[in-house]
Order: sequence, then C-alpha cells, then structure tokens
Amino acid sequence: MKKPEEAARWLLARDHFLILTHVRPDGDTTGCAIALCLGLRSLGKDAWIWENPQFSSRYLPRMEGLLRTDRAEDATMVAVDMATESLLPKGGEGFAGTFQLCIDHHPSNTFYAADTLLDASCAGCGELIYQVLAAMGVEITPEMAEAIYIAISTDTGCFRFSNTSAQTFETAAACVRLGAKIAPINRQLFEIKTRGRLELESRMMAEMDFYCGGTVAICCLPQKLVEELGVSEDDLDSISGFPRTIEGVLVGAVIRDSEPGKVKFSVRTAPGFNASTYCAALGGGGHAAAAGASIPGTLAEGKEALLQVLRQDKTLWK
Amino acid sequence: MKKPEEAARWLLARDHFLILTHVRPDGDTTGCAIALCLGLRSLGKDAWIWENPQFSSRYLPRMEGLLRTDRAEDATMVAVDMATESLLPKGGEGFAGTFQLCIDHHPSNTFYAADTLLDASCAGCGELIYQVLAAMGVEITPEMAEAIYIAISTDTGCFRFSNTSAQTFETAAACVRLGAKIAPINRQLFEIKTRGRLELESRMMAEMDFYCGGTVAICCLPQKLVEELGVSEDDLDSISGFPRTIEGVLVGAVIRDSEPGKVKFSVRTAPGFNASTYCAALGGGGHAAAAGASIPGTLAEGKEALLQVLRQDKTLWK
Repeated sequence: MKKPEEAARWLLARDHFLILTHVRPDGDTTGCAIALCLGLRSLGKDAWIWENPQFSSRYLPRMEGLLRTDRAEDATMVAVDMATESLLPKGGEGFAGTFQLCIDHHPSNTFYAADTLLDASCAGCGELIYQVLAAMGVEITPEMAEAIYIAISTDTGCFRFSNTSAQTFETAAACVRLGAKIAPINRQLFEIKTRGRLELESRMMAEMDFYCGGTVAICCLPQKLVEELGVSEDDLDSISGFPRTIEGVLVGAVIRDSEPGKVKFSVRTAPGFNASTYCAALGGGGHAAAAGASIPGTLAEGKEALLQVLRQDKTLWK
Repeated sequence: MKKPEEAARWLLARDHFLILTHVRPDGDTTGCAIALCLGLRSLGKDAWIWENPQFSSRYLPRMEGLLRTDRAEDATMVAVDMATESLLPKGGEGFAGTFQLCIDHHPSNTFYAADTLLDASCAGCGELIYQVLAAMGVEITPEMAEAIYIAISTDTGCFRFSNTSAQTFETAAACVRLGAKIAPINRQLFEIKTRGRLELESRMMAEMDFYCGGTVAICCLPQKLVEELGVSEDDLDSISGFPRTIEGVLVGAVIRDSEPGKVKFSVRTAPGFNASTYCAALGGGGHAAAAGASIPGTLAEGKEALLQVLRQDKTLWK
C-alpha cells in the first residue's frame, strides 16, 4: 500500500480488529493504537488493543475499555509502529505470522504483514494514523486527537528532534484544533522528571569523565546506584542521551553493568562522528548517531576498552 | 491597530526604521527584530536594529550588518515584544516617548507608542511578525523564517508551555516550509545545557528541601556557589522553574542572596496554588503561577519566612 486512502478502504471493508503495539511500548505505538481503536469504534466497528504487559501506567487511563488479552477468532490483526516481528510484545510472540496489516514509519520495516502501509517521512507513526483516520472519514474526537498528539510529540522529543517536519507541526496544529488539551500532556511528558531521575542525573554529572577538552564525555552507571536510587525503567529512558546534552560534547557514552559479568555501551555522537564504527570495534552496531555494544568485564574495563577505540579516531582524539 | 494588515500598510508607507528590543532580550524580541529588519530591507527599505548591549552571543551571527547604536534623524521608531517603556534596553532609556509603532503580544502592554498592534492570543510575538511580513507581501527567506522560529519556539519552551496554540504550530510549520533549518536551533536552544548549568542543577538537587510529602520544594542558591561554578546569567535563566520540574512538586521556590544583605524569592506553583498570594505576604507580587519577593536577611532566614507563609495555606500544608 502506498497511500493512507488504500489502508482506509482496507480497514473500512473489515469489522473486527485486534491492534498490536511493540515491545517496550513508547508514546508513539501506544498513541497510535488508542487513536486507531477509537477511530474504528466510532465507525461502529469492533476494535480492541492487545494488552501489552509493558504499557506505561501514564497511558492506561486512556485505554480503559479498549484492552483485551485474547484474540477473537475473526479479528483482523493490525500492528502499529512495529518494524519487525522481533519487536512483538512480551507474551505476544504467538502472534508472529498472523498480521494482516502493519501501519509503520520505520525504514527498517521487514514487511512481515500481508499488507503494509509504510511512510518513513513521518516523524511519528501518529502522523500516518491521523491521515488514515481522516481518509476513513472518522470524526476525530479530542480523545483521538490527544492520542495522536502523544504519538507525534513523544517520537520527536516534543518537536526538538531532527525528524520534526512541517507535516509534524501541521498534524500537531490539527490535533489542537480538534480539541486536544496539550498543556497537561506536555507537562507530564516533557517537563516533569521524577526525583529518582533527577538524583540519577545529579550523580551522573558528579561521575562524568571528560576528555579531549570536553568533547568526549563518558559515564559509568553502576547497577548498584540504579537500585539504591530506586529509579524505574521509565526513569532510565533516554539516559543514554544524557552526556550528549552537555554543551561541547561530540561523543557521549553511558556504560552500564545491569547484567552480571557484562558491560553495555550506549554511544551517541554529533554529525561527523560515527557511533556505529566505535561500537563495531566492540562487537556491536547501530546507527551513525546512536549505537551500542556489549562485552564481558567490569565498568572500569569497559571504559578502558571504549577509550582505546575512541583514541584511534584521530579526528576526535587530538 | 487591530490587524496585521493595518500595521503592514503603515510600514509600507515609511522608508527608514530603527527597531528596538526589550531589556534582557530573549529569543522572542530578538527573533522578531531580525525577521522584521530583514523583511523591511527585502522591500528596499532602510532598516536597522538598535544594538541592545545584552543581546545573547548565540544570536549575534544572525544580526551581522543589521545593528547600529545611533538613531538616524528620519528613522521611524518601532518596538517589538516590549510591553512597557520600563523595559527599554540598557542605554536605550533615552528612546522613551519616541516610539511610533509597537508590535506586541503582552496583555499588559501600556500603549506607550503612537500606534500599537497588539495580539495577546499569540504565544510568541513572532507569530504576529510573521503575519505582518506576509501582509506586506515579503518573500520570506530561510533567514527570516529561522528568526521567526526562534521567536516562537523560545517563548513556548519549544512548544511545551500552555500558551502553545494551533496557530503556533501552524506558524512553525510555515517556517519549516519556507526553509528554516530547525534541528540545529532546537539542539542549541533546548537540548544542550552547559556543564555549569548541569552542575548547578546537580548541586541544587542535593540541597533541595522537600516538605508535605514532596509537594513543596525549596532550594537556597548561595551566590558563593554560583560564583564557584562560574555559571553565567544565561545558565541561571529559568532556574526559578527548576524545583517545579520535579514530579509531585506543587509549590517550588528558589531563594537567592545575589545582593548583599537581601534575599530574593522566586515562587512557582501548580494551578490551585497562588504564588502571588504567598509573595504578597513577603512584600512582593506577580502572577498566580509565578511570583517573586525580596526581604532583608540571610538565606536561612528567608527560607524560614517563606515556610511560615506556606504553612498558613491549609490546602497546601496538611
């Protein structure tokens, strides 16, 4: 499928739906599922969201009455924002091979579903869901508009990230005109941090090591500290990007020992410095701006190994 | 003047302009001045920005060739984003009483200029400048679009604040379609923090006192610490809001001793709690959500005085 209109016709021709979100569900997959489910129901269809056991508690009130844990026999299986079946939610592995439609914006989509509507130009999959709902003639309610807003705002870091496009802003404008109350959403998602997260950042700042005149920042994050501060996985979300939020840092890394005997690297880089090259040298991989790797050893050993790799980049290490 | 079209006709009828920004210039007043100056020049007019001595160095490269420190005799005086003449820039106090046009979005505007275009529904004054440029028939260049984007994104905290409207998003979308490269702007303005600012936050977290089950957070910020960390005024920008970014905090306050023998309170509150009432009890004032006060004494005495006031609010202090 090339266009939202095709997906709209396809959905209009069916009546029973089960919508799947991806493992470690973020605001995009969750918001897409909510908006699509409510949109289909508004047309008199029978639609449900499969209860992903990892749904964030902050979104659960928006999903009241939309969740189920089983699959009705006649339900059409739709995945939203899920690039591959390796991202099936926990407990939903059995749905592999059953998807009839996937709506997604990841260029890495593997076309595992019988039909796929893919638009990689969308910053959030929510932009695409908005177009599909509009093409189905859904009268978009404030609840649907808020779900779409959550989807696109979370996937763009509240319009900060480089994927934000004119269409992203236009979709956000449409959500507001359709009645989305965005101020409390923005405050909850982008302004408030838990004490645990703030204390974690505070301790990370104290432990951060800077090299090359402050262009390289490396922080070891001991699991002991994570447990001592009682920080949740939600709090740890995006912590890998923290060193790169410091002025002047071109290469930032967080090293964790969350699994015994192993250390995990998360590397983030500015344009011109390739995180995936650094991580490949440690047996990992990823993208140019964000990559990861994992090796046996302690935090101190991990840090030494990473420094050895970085020192070989002569454009960085002068 | 009620409409951008009127201001556009007024500007089109004149040929020489000096544009003024307000004291402690932020991204809104600066971006407005740049966009308006470039827009007027693109129509063949002679337009300049008065060189505010407090312009942030981050915006200076965008103002190359646009700045002057004197006023040509025939120059029409235009103020942007300046609500009252008490906000005249440092060294520009002599311009009081000379303004022929003010373009602004503050409801508190005192109509000090001969003509005023005021639209308080605009989140940033940049939204209004965009409308004026469009009404003048200016072909908006990427440079103008970026200046407008800086204006509206800074005044909305990158679209997070409650003033963000559908029109704000639509103006941002227009800026992107007109060629504004927003990713580097967003990173510079909203993602990066200096080491000084991060260290300051880290120390503030360590010193923060919580009361009433974490709903009240008070932080004393000694001038000694500010100087020790070498943090700039830019770094201190918005530090007053920091306690309220902690989850669960309804009333947040920062107390500073930047002037000898005195302490200054900045209080920020959630809806339902009135910062200006608290500050009025300390001889200050402000808005419901953000207010300030100043009393003689030390940080410890200031904190005790504030606690006494807060304890009297029985909806807060239980």
